[in-house]
Amino acid sequence: MTGDAVHPAWLPDEAWRPVGSRRVLVRADGPLAQTVVRELARAADRHGGTLRHQPARPQQADTGTRGSDSDSDSDSDSDSDDASIRAGAGFDLVSALTGADDLPGPAAMVLAEVDRRVGRGSLGTEGFVLARREGVTVLLADGPAGLLYGLFHLVRLGEAAFGAALPIDVHHPVSARRMLNHWDNIDTHPVMGQVERGYSGGSIFWRDGGLTGDLDRVRAYARLLASIGVNAVTVNNVNVHATEAHLLTDRLDDVAALAGVLRPYHVRVHLSVNFNSPVALGGLPTADPLDPGVRTWWAETTRRVYAAIPDFGGYVVKADSEGQPGPFGYGRTHAEGANTLAAALEPHGGVVHWRAFVYNHHQDWRDRSTDRARAAHDHFAPLDGHFAGNVVLQVKHGPIDFQTREPVSPVIAAMPGTHLAVELQVTQEYTGQQRHVCYLGPMWSEVLSFTPWGATRPTVAEVASGAAHGDERAEPGRRPSGQGGLVAVSNVGDDPFWTGHPLAQANLYAFGRLAWNPLLDPAALLDEWIELTFTPAATADPDLLRRTVHKVMDGSWQVYESYTAPLGVGFMVRPGSHYGPDVDGYEYTPWGTYHFADRDGIGVDRTRATGTGFTGQYPKPWSDVYESPASCPDELLLFFHHVPYTHVLHSGKTVVQHIYDTHFDGADRVALMRSSWARLGDAGLVDPDVDARVRERLDEQLRCAQEWRDQINTYFYRKSGIPDAHGRRIH
Amino acid sequence: MTGDAVHPAWLPDEAWRPVGSRRVLVRADGPLAQTVVRELARAADRHGGTLRHQPARPQQADTGTRGSDSDSDSDSDSDSDDASIRAGAGFDLVSALTGADDLPGPAAMVLAEVDRRVGRGSLGTEGFVLARREGVTVLLADGPAGLLYGLFHLVRLGEAAFGAALPIDVHHPVSARRMLNHWDNIDTHPVMGQVERGYSGGSIFWRDGGLTGDLDRVRAYARLLASIGVNAVTVNNVNVHATEAHLLTDRLDDVAALAGVLRPYHVRVHLSVNFNSPVALGGLPTADPLDPGVRTWWAETTRRVYAAIPDFGGYVVKADSEGQPGPFGYGRTHAEGANTLAAALEPHGGVVHWRAFVYNHHQDWRDRSTDRARAAHDHFAPLDGHFAGNVVLQVKHGPIDFQTREPVSPVIAAMPGTHLAVELQVTQEYTGQQRHVCYLGPMWSEVLSFTPWGATRPTVAEVASGAAHGDERAEPGRRPSGQGGLVAVSNVGDDPFWTGHPLAQANLYAFGRLAWNPLLDPAALLDEWIELTFTPAATADPDLLRRTVHKVMDGSWQVYESYTAPLGVGFMVRPGSHYGPDVDGYEYTPWGTYHFADRDGIGVDRTRATGTGFTGQYPKPWSDVYESPASCPDELLLFFHHVPYTHVLHSGKTVVQHIYDTHFDGADRVALMRSSWARLGDAGLVDPDVDARVRERLDEQLRCAQEWRDQINTYFYRKSGIPDAHGRRIH
Repeated sequence: MTGDAVHPAWLPDEAWRPVGSRRVLVRADGPLAQTVVRELARAADRHGGTLRHQPARPQQADTGTRGSDSDSDSDSDSDSDDASIRAGAGFDLVSALTGADDLPGPAAMVLAEVDRRVGRGSLGTEGFVLARREGVTVLLADGPAGLLYGLFHLVRLGEAAFGAALPIDVHHPVSARRMLNHWDNIDTHPVMGQVERGYSGGSIFWRDGGLTGDLDRVRAYARLLASIGVNAVTVNNVNVHATEAHLLTDRLDDVAALAGVLRPYHVRVHLSVNFNSPVALGGLPTADPLDPGVRTWWAETTRRVYAAIPDFGGYVVKADSEGQPGPFGYGRTHAEGANTLAAALEPHGGVVHWRAFVYNHHQDWRDRSTDRARAAHDHFAPLDGHFAGNVVLQVKHGPIDFQTREPVSPVIAAMPGTHLAVELQVTQEYTGQQRHVCYLGPMWSEVLSFTPWGATRPTVAEVASGAAHGDERAEPGRRPSGQGGLVAVSNVGDDPFWTGHPLAQANLYAFGRLAWNPLLDPAALLDEWIELTFTPAATADPDLLRRTVHKVMDGSWQVYESYTAPLGVGFMVRPGSHYGPDVDGYEYTPWGTYHFADRDGIGVDRTRATGTGFTGQYPKPWSDVYESPASCPDELLLFFHHVPYTHVLHSGKTVVQHIYDTHFDGADRVALMRSSWARLGDAGLVDPDVDARVRERLDEQLRCAQEWRDQINTYFYRKSGIPDAHGRRIH
Repeated sequence: MTGDAVHPAWLPDEAWRPVGSRRVLVRADGPLAQTVVRELARAADRHGGTLRHQPARPQQADTGTRGSDSDSDSDSDSDSDDASIRAGAGFDLVSALTGADDLPGPAAMVLAEVDRRVGRGSLGTEGFVLARREGVTVLLADGPAGLLYGLFHLVRLGEAAFGAALPIDVHHPVSARRMLNHWDNIDTHPVMGQVERGYSGGSIFWRDGGLTGDLDRVRAYARLLASIGVNAVTVNNVNVHATEAHLLTDRLDDVAALAGVLRPYHVRVHLSVNFNSPVALGGLPTADPLDPGVRTWWAETTRRVYAAIPDFGGYVVKADSEGQPGPFGYGRTHAEGANTLAAALEPHGGVVHWRAFVYNHHQDWRDRSTDRARAAHDHFAPLDGHFAGNVVLQVKHGPIDFQTREPVSPVIAAMPGTHLAVELQVTQEYTGQQRHVCYLGPMWSEVLSFTPWGATRPTVAEVASGAAHGDERAEPGRRPSGQGGLVAVSNVGDDPFWTGHPLAQANLYAFGRLAWNPLLDPAALLDEWIELTFTPAATADPDLLRRTVHKVMDGSWQVYESYTAPLGVGFMVRPGSHYGPDVDGYEYTPWGTYHFADRDGIGVDRTRATGTGFTGQYPKPWSDVYESPASCPDELLLFFHHVPYTHVLHSGKTVVQHIYDTHFDGADRVALMRSSWARLGDAGLVDPDVDARVRERLDEQLRCAQEWRDQINTYFYRKSGIPDAHGRRIH
């Protein structure tokens, strides 16, 4: 990377060498197949391979493409005759639709085995099969999207895809929809910037009050998304301001333009819409969801959207939340609100993602009976079964708001009759804002594998995929069914590294991969990401490179947790910016985020026995586990209980000594991360631009971690009067 | 006041009735005399009086105006002959320059007495003499500015000016310069708004990126200023941003236009300038004040300013402060910086107001040895005697920053060889932001009458006027001498009530009057203001009106103090906005404003014995008085000392019980203020628009006072664990 170039993230040219240096045959048709061919041609061009592209059924005249792909600029082996193709002679890789005829021998063998084992046509739109037989790697899919995903899987495998024989390996996404929400605005807000809670510069979609002029950047983004399996994005903020509201109507052309760029990578566009649109855009006197005129307006408006964007995905709605309008304003339920939009989308196959993030943000801090953690469950659990089939209730993974440590939201277990999507936050609003290294794969993995009913199954991931409650089982290796899935708030902006902190690319990567398969090991995902991004094999000291990146990133979420808010108590951040410590910053505000620290103890009593009763929103065993400090996990103790500073944790330490120890230790570990990285950079093993940016961020992380350490320790020492057992310096 | 009209503040038509209904003779010439004549003509027109205007010396041909003033639209008594004028027949009021000849009998008698007692020509530019003899009120001045100020004094006196005989009363401003600083920007800042720390809407000088189109509003403002004796304003923020920097050069025409509007009311324009201007505007490579090119640039630029505005006042500079550039950037002292600008201004008679508000705003909260209170003295005391004669060091009245309660700045006693101006803050940044009633006259009176050396004289006011150190004594009744004076940050904006809260007009009023004469009693000033503004005599129940406004305003500063930060500790406000409570809001920030509360006690140890040594910056006796908790006044205890919550005050209460008591009491008193005002409004005794605005603000004041009460009490209860002695509710 040099000058103003955009960093290739995990798709540098070098990552394409194994595929790009092979002799490849593609047997597929259609626009997505063209994308596969274009990718392979580009790789072959750079790494010396060859590419031959033929339609799946060349004997038929109804495919648009015949013979060598005209888009290809590779040295395609146009002289090979059909016979040699059938024999598989001269190909290292065959990528074909299962509907292709006359496949080369090894591919035909794999296809026969697929037919025997899972049945041709049962791979679904996005699934694929990979195997290696007789020196030929075979990639098969029922549809071209599967070939696209399979291609990127080959890139991940690298040389391993072209070595020893590989048994048949069937790949499916667990969830049908794997979505990123961009909190991007067209206009730039003077305080929030253009991207709300964005830490990577401006929007890649919008610039200077309109559509970006750099659609190549959008194309590059779509390619990155396809490579990790993300297939849906919203292109505007869930807080839909005045300008952005018009994307639904008179600025629809801009959305269509983006859809046109994303479509070749199998990414559908969704829109965040304002519930008040019938009034604000349509000039109606009301946005009451039961008003016939309103219903007609949504239907007609949606029809126009689909006329412009036939594969439009649907709407995302933040209603009655933090000042956004919603059905409460008309005395209607959220089901009534959501279903009106759903009815408009239903004829076109679209869905409504309806956010469950509804709570009172004008709370009185004096009132200890109101508990923000309860709000989503209180609002939505009674509505289970009332949502239309194309409504997806989008639930934040925790009951509060993307804190470093929260329990899993009880809403996830409370809506068996509702399609659910679990919302994660890739942008590091509360986890260091891409100035701190904080690899979130382990957090998400923990959330996704949490078992809301206490047994080993179903998991949160299975609820989200629909497998937990649906008739069709959706699990790794089987086709997904439900409308739900995983959604995350994007961390991408027009920063040359995409994500501000170059290492924060790993969070985007891990999100996509976990959305595809939540059982993947986050450490293994980090391996994948490191191999692709840094291509250590091409460096002087691949082991040092791998070891160091792991050392810096593996435990970075726990490190971040250790020097910030302790034991699940949350917040303690600067109001507004949410960066850096401010223990009492939210303590007397209307936001419902309190810690209740006094001279004797700290924490929020959310028990049924003496507190807000929030523990009662969980099914057993969690309702009991969380109810008692004796069984509550240490890391969530202060989320559920108000305890004395002298309370002894399962770890054997007192609460206050735990605070001191973790905060001293956390800052020390950041210093180690920083020195480890410096050795890597000094050895010249990473791109100098990446190195410089990472060093700058680690400097800030260390400064900030020390600030957290000192403020938190000082605060609790001043309040408790209990000195550190080890006599370390507290100010 | 109706519709969009601008409130007349303390100059409603009704206040002009006593003057306007009389037969008046003016004997004076020149532009300022024209202003006097115009004011009198307008009053006569509305209230049925008559006006005759003649030059001071009609026999001479060198005055520009002869006979009846052509600007006058009154029924001037143009048929009277010179003889009747000389006899004084038919005049109730004679307003004349002491240089006038052939004055009517009563005026001639008064003039003779003036000659005998103080000497004609010794009244100075701005002084005047008032007396009433033989049924004629006589106003004499050496210059027309004196007549202008005398006219407004007559308006204040009302009918009392036309009743019994009045002995000769000589009026002089104590300080030569009585200045308001407007922190107005041309551009609107997305967070700060257009007026930094402004709570009254946008700027009256600037709109839509340029000069306001409403110069009538500026004219009305100038008239209000003249009526209270203010004679200088800066028209832009001391934080001089990019756009506003250009007022000094290519946008000078706008400043000249404002000067043209202010001039007829004897108000000179000053400019806030950026120390870096030679670089930013002049394109020079440096702004080093000792660089010859820089000195030439300032000289030449200043020459052009005076070419456009011959009576231009000078520059105000905030240097090396809160991010503004300054001489430190070039390794120069503040004296060297100030003197370079002073040299440029000197040939034209201009002055530099150089702000002493210099401190480290990147302080480490962990470092208890650095004390922001010390900063101004540390920086400037060593420079005493090094500033040029036309430099005025502008010192905030307290050592920190306009808190509700601070000691007087020790800088004021430390610079006998320097012209000093004391800076007050009329805009209520830390005193309720014009949403709370907080009459600041008593605070300023306390500051101005403080005796830095402990004896009864000199006072702070005398230091500011130059009387304390100068050869010529400047005190009430004598001519001012020094370059110093009083400066205040304006609270005026384009709000229809000028000041947001209609009652905040009283602060502007009191500032002007105290700047003229710091010995005035703030309660008497409130009387003046009430009589002028509400003209109770014209209402159904004048006593109720007077009593209620006094009840609401008299003790409002102490009330505000009682429910906010206790015992001089300061801050505890929301960072950034500075509105509403946040006890720890600034506790761990770089701003140097800490309270160090822990479970045992609170306060800042600024003693020489064990603290930062700040007490040593005061002369005796204050250095000793403040050093010991035994002698330190209660209201400043926590400013100077860290004491246990159980420390017993001189009042007999413990610190923590004092906190509880004052906070409960303060909120209760706001409730009383609110109900008192409601009765006044219900009785229909005030303008409905004023009533509505005041009620709305009192509602907010009560809400906010209760919030302060509850947060402060809860904070200290949580920290100390000591219950309220009276068992009141603490959350």
